[in-house]
Amino acid sequence: MSLLDTTCSTIQPLDPAAMDQARQHQDRLTKPQGALGDLEQIAIQLAGITGMLAPPLRRPTLVVVAADHGVAAEGVSAYPASVTAQMVANFLAGGAAINVLARQANADVLIVDAGVQTPIISDSPLFRAERLGPGTANLLHGPAMSSASASESIERGIRIAFDLVASGVELIALGEMGIANTTAAACMTAALTENPASLVTGPGTGISLEQVGHKISVIERAIARIPAHPAALTVLSEVGGFEIGMLAGIVLGAAVRRTPVVIDGFITLAAALLAQRLCPGAIHYCIAAHCGSEPGNQIALDQLNLRPLLRLNLRLGEGSGAALAIPLIRAAARILGEMATFGSAGVDVALKIEPIFAAGS
Amino acid sequence: MSLLDTTCSTIQPLDPAAMDQARQHQDRLTKPQGALGDLEQIAIQLAGITGMLAPPLRRPTLVVVAADHGVAAEGVSAYPASVTAQMVANFLAGGAAINVLARQANADVLIVDAGVQTPIISDSPLFRAERLGPGTANLLHGPAMSSASASESIERGIRIAFDLVASGVELIALGEMGIANTTAAACMTAALTENPASLVTGPGTGISLEQVGHKISVIERAIARIPAHPAALTVLSEVGGFEIGMLAGIVLGAAVRRTPVVIDGFITLAAALLAQRLCPGAIHYCIAAHCGSEPGNQIALDQLNLRPLLRLNLRLGEGSGAALAIPLIRAAARILGEMATFGSAGVDVALKIEPIFAAGS
Repeated sequence: MSLLDTTCSTIQPLDPAAMDQARQHQDRLTKPQGALGDLEQIAIQLAGITGMLAPPLRRPTLVVVAADHGVAAEGVSAYPASVTAQMVANFLAGGAAINVLARQANADVLIVDAGVQTPIISDSPLFRAERLGPGTANLLHGPAMSSASASESIERGIRIAFDLVASGVELIALGEMGIANTTAAACMTAALTENPASLVTGPGTGISLEQVGHKISVIERAIARIPAHPAALTVLSEVGGFEIGMLAGIVLGAAVRRTPVVIDGFITLAAALLAQRLCPGAIHYCIAAHCGSEPGNQIALDQLNLRPLLRLNLRLGEGSGAALAIPLIRAAARILGEMATFGSAGVDVALKIEPIFAAGS
Repeated sequence: MSLLDTTCSTIQPLDPAAMDQARQHQDRLTKPQGALGDLEQIAIQLAGITGMLAPPLRRPTLVVVAADHGVAAEGVSAYPASVTAQMVANFLAGGAAINVLARQANADVLIVDAGVQTPIISDSPLFRAERLGPGTANLLHGPAMSSASASESIERGIRIAFDLVASGVELIALGEMGIANTTAAACMTAALTENPASLVTGPGTGISLEQVGHKISVIERAIARIPAHPAALTVLSEVGGFEIGMLAGIVLGAAVRRTPVVIDGFITLAAALLAQRLCPGAIHYCIAAHCGSEPGNQIALDQLNLRPLLRLNLRLGEGSGAALAIPLIRAAARILGEMATFGSAGVDVALKIEPIFAAGS
């Protein structure tokens, strides 16, 4: 059995006993029941993922996977493909938005070259080469990659997740870089959710309305090749991207290792959709960080049944939303670990409050 | 001239030159223009407030002001007034939600007794006594406080802000604790925005629908005493709270000292409305952290022309939303201070990218 098949068949449901325990503990804390809103749901999910009441989520790591896309030649992006490699160099030099946001979140960064046009040469400990080629083929004219590359991209992602967890990473956040990758993500989202291109396509990092019309037409022509109810790997090979496959693999690998994964924006959502089709249970290990203005975001979130923590009108990618969500996720876990319960807070506070709060009013 | 009058007449507009500089610098950073969405607006505001391109926002401090409310006797809350003092003890012991959230945000906490029923006795360095009495009078039957107490509560808040800034605090976040204070806040919001009670009143920390109806009727009867187009201080003395006046004072004091203030939820929004009526320019120093489900939240935010950073369905108060927003606000400032510009990033990245990004597409 392939690593992909083994992985998908090994992913377990969340731990219902740990979730019940978290729910019950949540209601013993010195606050009205449910008053911490979405944070309480995240804390219960984290307990179900890890089997721990208040997982410490040590060494949170933002994995930014970069690759190029042949479809960039169709003028679907505001930027030429060469910018992908330039931005990766910026990541490795520490000067990009994601570096700043990761520092603010006390998170490490790992930059992966999944297939940038110009190979990235770096001996930085922040860098990992997993090249599947100098970018995908132009998905307008034929498959973006071979079936073998599609499987391989996912399996490499699984191994990245395994290695991260083995090195002590307890929270994985996803990011990406790849000029034209909103086109690939829109193709995948349209094909996997069976929505028309026009509903899932937007300006990406900033093309004009006229260019969006052209982008929609490119996507429509590409997905016309894809049969109804396609297999997930068919969608990836026909219209995907190396980084999208690898990100889906990281989701699957993290789920096997019972490690929470933070999903960023549109491209990582397309990866999560792919992971969902390969193994529906993997999505329970995912936390959605941000819903941006790209129209496919909400469609993907709905399909995945995920509610994003943030809506900050970001349209940068790189994992910027995921990095910003890390402190919220850690706060959710720390609440369960550090807040006083009615029983633990000592007489002056707890015993007087308990009967009042316990009335459940 | 009183401290309040002096303060209001001293508050200056934001620094337009610093804001322009921040805007221009934002567009030189290695990202598409505007791609960091709401964070960019916050960064520009912070520059206008402080006069600095990337203010370090050292020693962020969450000020939680607590007081009791005579109107609690009307059964408008799920909890009796005694819970206010018990929760303040919990804050001082470090076991409340706000203590955990402040730790996660690397923020200090200051707990202020503005008039809790049972005086808080503590020699904790986290505590400050500013008692104006053992809670307000029952606002249903007459003024909650005297005109003198109304002015005094605001002036004490101004002094708190001055002391915080003098001690090196560069970001002030607001929180509150006071059983029945959503009733006072709803009265003030209704009176100051000239909306009916039914539009601004909700379940607070958790009363039943039937109890909400009763709460609305209490609020309607209380605000019926208030004349049309009332003076801000009249609204505070008739239907306000000691903590709400003090929080408004902190906003004003912070604005004089050109220090950003993070507004939490419904009660702190009522304080911001009060500050706005006393000095409209003070609101430019405010950042809205969270919009909760209490219906008056959005009405107050609209009136203040503030857009909240978070919508997490919190209904705890204490400053929980403000604490969660602190890392986002620091991230916004750090972006301007730490990201590479096209000019600074070095040849490999910058000079190739510059002409592309600069094309403004």
